[in-house]
Amino acid sequence: MPSKYQSLLTKVYEIHDLGKALAVLYWDKQVNMPPKGNAARTQQITTLSRLLHQMSTSDEMGEMIEAAAVELNGADYAGDEASLIRHLRRSYANARKLPPQFVARMSQLAGEAHPVWVKAREDNDFASFQPYLEQVIEMCQEMAELYGYEDEKYDALLDKYETDMKTAEVRATFDAVKAALVPLRQAIDERGTAVDDSIVHQPFPIEKQKEFARYIADAIGYDFSRGHLGTVVHPFAASFSRDDARITTRWYPDFLNPSLFGALHESGHAMYEQGTHPDLARTPLARGTSLGIHESQSRMMENVVGRSRGFWQAHFPKLQECFPEQLGQHTAEAFFRAINKVQPSFIRVEADELTYNFHIILRFELEQAMLNGDLAAKDLPTAWNDKMNEFLGVVPSNDSEGCLQDVHWTRPGFGYFPTYALGNLYAAQLWETAVVQHPEIEEELNQGKTNTLLAWLRENVHQHGRKFTPRELIQQVTGKPLSHEPFMRYATAKFTDIYGL
Amino acid sequence: MPSKYQSLLTKVYEIHDLGKALAVLYWDKQVNMPPKGNAARTQQITTLSRLLHQMSTSDEMGEMIEAAAVELNGADYAGDEASLIRHLRRSYANARKLPPQFVARMSQLAGEAHPVWVKAREDNDFASFQPYLEQVIEMCQEMAELYGYEDEKYDALLDKYETDMKTAEVRATFDAVKAALVPLRQAIDERGTAVDDSIVHQPFPIEKQKEFARYIADAIGYDFSRGHLGTVVHPFAASFSRDDARITTRWYPDFLNPSLFGALHESGHAMYEQGTHPDLARTPLARGTSLGIHESQSRMMENVVGRSRGFWQAHFPKLQECFPEQLGQHTAEAFFRAINKVQPSFIRVEADELTYNFHIILRFELEQAMLNGDLAAKDLPTAWNDKMNEFLGVVPSNDSEGCLQDVHWTRPGFGYFPTYALGNLYAAQLWETAVVQHPEIEEELNQGKTNTLLAWLRENVHQHGRKFTPRELIQQVTGKPLSHEPFMRYATAKFTDIYGL
Repeated sequence: MPSKYQSLLTKVYEIHDLGKALAVLYWDKQVNMPPKGNAARTQQITTLSRLLHQMSTSDEMGEMIEAAAVELNGADYAGDEASLIRHLRRSYANARKLPPQFVARMSQLAGEAHPVWVKAREDNDFASFQPYLEQVIEMCQEMAELYGYEDEKYDALLDKYETDMKTAEVRATFDAVKAALVPLRQAIDERGTAVDDSIVHQPFPIEKQKEFARYIADAIGYDFSRGHLGTVVHPFAASFSRDDARITTRWYPDFLNPSLFGALHESGHAMYEQGTHPDLARTPLARGTSLGIHESQSRMMENVVGRSRGFWQAHFPKLQECFPEQLGQHTAEAFFRAINKVQPSFIRVEADELTYNFHIILRFELEQAMLNGDLAAKDLPTAWNDKMNEFLGVVPSNDSEGCLQDVHWTRPGFGYFPTYALGNLYAAQLWETAVVQHPEIEEELNQGKTNTLLAWLRENVHQHGRKFTPRELIQQVTGKPLSHEPFMRYATAKFTDIYGL
Repeated sequence: MPSKYQSLLTKVYEIHDLGKALAVLYWDKQVNMPPKGNAARTQQITTLSRLLHQMSTSDEMGEMIEAAAVELNGADYAGDEASLIRHLRRSYANARKLPPQFVARMSQLAGEAHPVWVKAREDNDFASFQPYLEQVIEMCQEMAELYGYEDEKYDALLDKYETDMKTAEVRATFDAVKAALVPLRQAIDERGTAVDDSIVHQPFPIEKQKEFARYIADAIGYDFSRGHLGTVVHPFAASFSRDDARITTRWYPDFLNPSLFGALHESGHAMYEQGTHPDLARTPLARGTSLGIHESQSRMMENVVGRSRGFWQAHFPKLQECFPEQLGQHTAEAFFRAINKVQPSFIRVEADELTYNFHIILRFELEQAMLNGDLAAKDLPTAWNDKMNEFLGVVPSNDSEGCLQDVHWTRPGFGYFPTYALGNLYAAQLWETAVVQHPEIEEELNQGKTNTLLAWLRENVHQHGRKFTPRELIQQVTGKPLSHEPFMRYATAKFTDIYGL
């Protein structure tokens, strides 16, 4: 007779495989599906989601988890078995808190709100989207009550994306970031040498962009023999196993950054998945532990590595080879400066490494206000513009480049946004530790290589998958809890140099 | 309370959606998946197949079908409801005959054998594939016993792909084809004017091949707004709904035919799926009724339409536009002759319209011998080469261009091959009827158009999906049972003309 844990594993594998089939349906929808295929695909996704929810939340599943937990009592906390039990208990309990009708209402609302938002953004018509935002706020409030919380309502939602993270902790950290970034940005404004980024705004043939994206993803360690590069409108990474972790990007004919930094960013995500330990395969532990830690891996490759001087000293000649007319006359240093230009702007996904954080902090503060009933949907545009002015000194001329720009609020998904900025902070904190432990990482980077860095990330972060919470992982790897200081040290040094402050 | 039929439909939809998710997993495996992703994908496919089999063969499912059948007693035979009940009863009974462990073993074997076959074919190493072929033969034998049969073992397997077709019937028809083709082929050999096909063997830039493939697929009526063109090693078509029916092809840098006729062939398949009636959506009736009828649609587009003189009189100028250096100096007539060159060759998928049938008859005969225990896996290469010599007067110099060339025997799929040649016969029989009923079809074809033909196929074949068996459908549309005569009339006229016999 198999052990209780073995029986549980068999069930876990089945649920996992079904979940990955669902992930393939989503991936294919974005990458290959013709638009008219959407109605049938939505039915397929709905059916698989329902089956998955039934299997994951059945009484039988709960009993199997508890039976295995009893059998494993006293097992090593850091072992695969105990870690899986911890994860399953948490996710099972959370999934059981949402009644099926509520889950159905959520996906119904998301389905209805999305096309309205698309049109509202096109037409710059916030009023038409407002009733849906009101429902999103209400459902977020309802969801917070269903999940429950000890200190703040927002904790209940944040926990979905960043397990065990508290709002108060994020707020304190973000406040510290804000306090430190404001004078840095002012110094750049007032005393910085001008940075010219016109060289990334030229016609760049797409076939050559594709060639270079493959080259540079390979250079940082993305394993194409266990991966695939697809083309989409909104880039993302997805993995169906550690041996099939995919990236996507988009191609602009006259702007190099989206494809280039998109490829680096998504490769960072996919390399995390490629690095999970084989023993975790077919369990929910075989993926990045949280959205914030995931984002730290993508931001590490996109920014810390991919926007560094040394890296481009090494790789700029290859980029020139791909684009001799566009870049043949320019230096690696000029390119390095161009891709690091700091400039307040309206659109989050186009923001530079510094001002990006303000975009996130703004959303984090507005989400709390909406959730707590301090900000009504109708007052969002004004609140948004006020904060843009306060944080970045610019005011969007319309809501399409203001509070209508992101897809995230078309579904009850408050709590997601802060993980983007947490990723920047985690990335800097991990990087600082890695370089202290292996000073050769910086020397390698000057040669365009990431071998030691990647080996260190594999050892300390990737292989563990979801065994530890972000809090546990960061403490264990860096010896300290989350802090804004490494990011500020990194950013201050980098931009002081670039802008000659 | 919903009717019994409505309850059944709800269940049918769920099973259908899961089956389509499985189809996406297969499609993605061929088109996008990195090779190393295969192990995990095989597990995912195995899990979904098992769930699907459980749901399709549950006692509950059987009771629901019978309850709905009672409720619908007396419903119109040709109606959607009665047709669905007939189909479900048949497929339920068949599926119940295969134990779940057997189904799991089949998909496991297929997953393992495929990469071994790919490598064996590359390395021309039959010995490494032989153990897998032995397992395939054993599982086919086991499957025939599980399904059961009245006359011949092979009937049990053939029925899976060509419902209600008997081996004896296929044998008699194929023997008639063989008897009639041999003198035609001899006449071509002995008295035919030489046909030069060197113009299709030139360097053809792949990007231009892609452009033309899209052009010509669109020209025959494949709807790209409900489709997608992917690149693969072994082309196929797949549909996830009538609004997402995909084609794939491959690109040879110095041979035009594979991409061109591959695109036409797979478009023919996909157009069948795109043409199924919307009312059949999410039921097993929403697809082609049998592999043979399916193949009749692909062969119709590839050969009857796509290798006709009139069609190329209309479309050759566009082809010249894509390849001015290669084709600028040639005539449509020269191209028409080149793509209709009859020449015994080793590779089935590259064979001409006439000799193709010999490749199929060879496989049909060898499969029966292996299934009946008259031919062991280890003796396949010799038997293969002997038959090639007998039928076509040529002997492959190695197994990669002999018995290792096809993917089909990497899974327990005996019974599939004959449907390819049946497709040629059905295509000619349908074409003959269509042209009698609508003589303008030939005139349109001379202008490169297929409108009336496609409308006729939609009306008489496509919209019915799987409501009727191939036998019923052919009788109903052409007024006669399957016959080799229309094909022989078509082929004799065409090649007598081309070869000046």
